[in-house]
Amino acid sequence: MKYCGKVVVTLKPGVFDPQGMTIRNALHALSYREVEEVETGKYFKVTLKAETKEEAERRIREMCDQLLANPVIEQYAFEVQEIR
Amino acid sequence: MKYCGKVVVTLKPGVFDPQGMTIRNALHALSYREVEEVETGKYFKVTLKAETKEEAERRIREMCDQLLANPVIEQYAFEVQEIR
Repeated sequence: MKYCGKVVVTLKPGVFDPQGMTIRNALHALSYREVEEVETGKYFKVTLKAETKEEAERRIREMCDQLLANPVIEQYAFEVQEIR
Repeated sequence: MKYCGKVVVTLKPGVFDPQGMTIRNALHALSYREVEEVETGKYFKVTLKAETKEEAERRIREMCDQLLANPVIEQYAFEVQEIR
């Protein structure tokens, strides 16, 4: 079976996000004054083979812990879908 | 009303993604041989004030077109939720 994992990696609460602040300021300068906050993160779409959805989820969680996210400053969330 | 827009910006199909290839190769080296492809993208969580959800969606679409995504090589998707 083939699965697709959509992973979002964001900074943990309290970690300084200068990129997000820069984007918020740029949006204000473009007249989007209603924007209160911008938080930035990374997105990964991982296509992989696995026997079951549970196995795909377990492997993607391992990949996040080992490579895709920095556990010191980042958190992650993902969802896995079967590809037909 | 306050709303939160979760925006994912990815490369358009056919646009070369060297970062994704590098991550796929790194995952293979870490013994995640079942990974077939990795596509990378950017994630933005935008908190904003708006009268209605439709207005929040319209404004976020404008921000994507003007600043958050490069329409030449990138595509975007987003969902908006009310924050209570």
